[in-house]
Amino acid sequence: MKPVVVDAMGGDNAPNAIIEGVRQALEGGISVELVGDPDLLDDLGGLTLNPATEVIEMAEEPGKAVRLKKDSSIVRAAELVRDGHASAMVSAGNTGAVAAAALLRMKRLKGVQRPAIATVIPVPSGTPKILLDSGAMADCQADWLQQFARMGSTFAKVRYEMREPRIGLVSIGEEPEKGNQLVKETHALLSRDSSINFVGNVEGRDVLEGEVDVLVADGFTGNVILKTLEGTMQFLVGQIVSVLGGENATEVGLEALNLLAPIAAELNPDAVGGAMLLGVNGVAIISHGSAGPTAITNACKVAQDMVERDLVGELAAAIG
Amino acid sequence: MKPVVVDAMGGDNAPNAIIEGVRQALEGGISVELVGDPDLLDDLGGLTLNPATEVIEMAEEPGKAVRLKKDSSIVRAAELVRDGHASAMVSAGNTGAVAAAALLRMKRLKGVQRPAIATVIPVPSGTPKILLDSGAMADCQADWLQQFARMGSTFAKVRYEMREPRIGLVSIGEEPEKGNQLVKETHALLSRDSSINFVGNVEGRDVLEGEVDVLVADGFTGNVILKTLEGTMQFLVGQIVSVLGGENATEVGLEALNLLAPIAAELNPDAVGGAMLLGVNGVAIISHGSAGPTAITNACKVAQDMVERDLVGELAAAIG
Repeated sequence: MKPVVVDAMGGDNAPNAIIEGVRQALEGGISVELVGDPDLLDDLGGLTLNPATEVIEMAEEPGKAVRLKKDSSIVRAAELVRDGHASAMVSAGNTGAVAAAALLRMKRLKGVQRPAIATVIPVPSGTPKILLDSGAMADCQADWLQQFARMGSTFAKVRYEMREPRIGLVSIGEEPEKGNQLVKETHALLSRDSSINFVGNVEGRDVLEGEVDVLVADGFTGNVILKTLEGTMQFLVGQIVSVLGGENATEVGLEALNLLAPIAAELNPDAVGGAMLLGVNGVAIISHGSAGPTAITNACKVAQDMVERDLVGELAAAIG
Repeated sequence: MKPVVVDAMGGDNAPNAIIEGVRQALEGGISVELVGDPDLLDDLGGLTLNPATEVIEMAEEPGKAVRLKKDSSIVRAAELVRDGHASAMVSAGNTGAVAAAALLRMKRLKGVQRPAIATVIPVPSGTPKILLDSGAMADCQADWLQQFARMGSTFAKVRYEMREPRIGLVSIGEEPEKGNQLVKETHALLSRDSSINFVGNVEGRDVLEGEVDVLVADGFTGNVILKTLEGTMQFLVGQIVSVLGGENATEVGLEALNLLAPIAAELNPDAVGGAMLLGVNGVAIISHGSAGPTAITNACKVAQDMVERDLVGELAAAIG
């Protein structure tokens, strides 16, 4: 298989954590190469580096950055996939820039109106949930959301071998007449779509516990959900750690934290390998900005897996 | 002061929990009366009941229910405020119906384009955050959101005596150019509004921990945030309780749960007295559907407080 290319410059922990993750992926038998600035990277210990002399920073305006920084690691990674040198790309860099570069260089799949970012949300002692779009398209139309539903369904089948993924539409009540105009229009389209298993509207409280596998939303709503989820978890974990493990921690508190550690591990998004940009002509994985070596190694594994299972071909078939 | 009227029929625990909450409010020196169906309520123990023979159920379509059930407890409560018999209304019933009844019977304040529901989010060892609109208006315009910002600012001043509440606009990035079309337009309006202390865009992760006091969003986004927050907390609390206090609970686990109990108590929305409908010509409090006696008692206290501090007059001044 052609190598997976990994953006060495993207993410809060780049380049060291990225390089370490790639090294572990290679040791795990995955064909993988780096993309990045040779002048800023040394001690690659035998890893292959595809040169790119520019870096898109996390806070840059994505469209502009991709347009101006043609020799950036993100743009080059997308080109390596487009040109057939690589089978897939992985980046923990600027999410919008990865989406824009993949879209502009790999192009949309035939029939796809807009791509969407599918985020996998780990659920302790349960099956992960898939949320899309989690931020590629802030303003959406109903027919785009219908395609998101189809792409999310296909992704759930290919990635998690679900046979009939339950598709829910994020709204503010279960009844079809609840929601904003976009959701009401989308509900009507999804209800008539026999290619998916549409279970109706779902709510914010179903993100972790609902009877649903794929949650469909416009990119604004999806992103707000993800960040509210992350923020709430971080806040609660912070509170718990400060009570049980703070300055005046007792033995009981510390023992209890040990008991709770497995929950935190299961909620760690590093285990699920990053978000996937669906609808472009190639596999593009967008890892969390805070990705460490394990997240990058897992992203490489998922990337290889999605290439081998022909996710892109399956998506094209679902939309075409 | 004229009495606060409380809907005896609304909420998952009606009527008993409501009646008990009203009794406690009365014992606490608050002038308060019930509204409800005399045939369904007995043992009122001296509480005053304003009769209303119909009940709007939690799942009913709000607009239709308010139009058809003219003798429902929710509609009658709003009329008692309109007619000057009561100073304020409290209901734990169908949120949309309370908002619709208050809007149709009390009418909008002069100059207000749309009312908004302001929800108070308790923050352990911190100042509560105010989120509006949390569900009254699913589809909004930028100038409505600007009014929500002004009303939220006024509410924070009157309710929590904040001097210069920090107003944030919910988006998917801090930069002004991030967000959907509605948010970008609203950002421009708020940036130019010298009557509020606008601190810029905030994200889902700022709901509990951000440097912001009032979070402004359209009712769809606000409601999604609230339910994601609630769902995430319930999920995590469930996980923690099952690990520390489940079937195989150890002494350490149970002791640790005791240590954590104060956090849960501080996060309990019952303490903050319910959401407030802002922009109508009267004080209307919408308690959580699961409200127990304490939540109702607190709602009555807040209602009386808001009447005494002339919240409605302050809102009129802020918009007019």
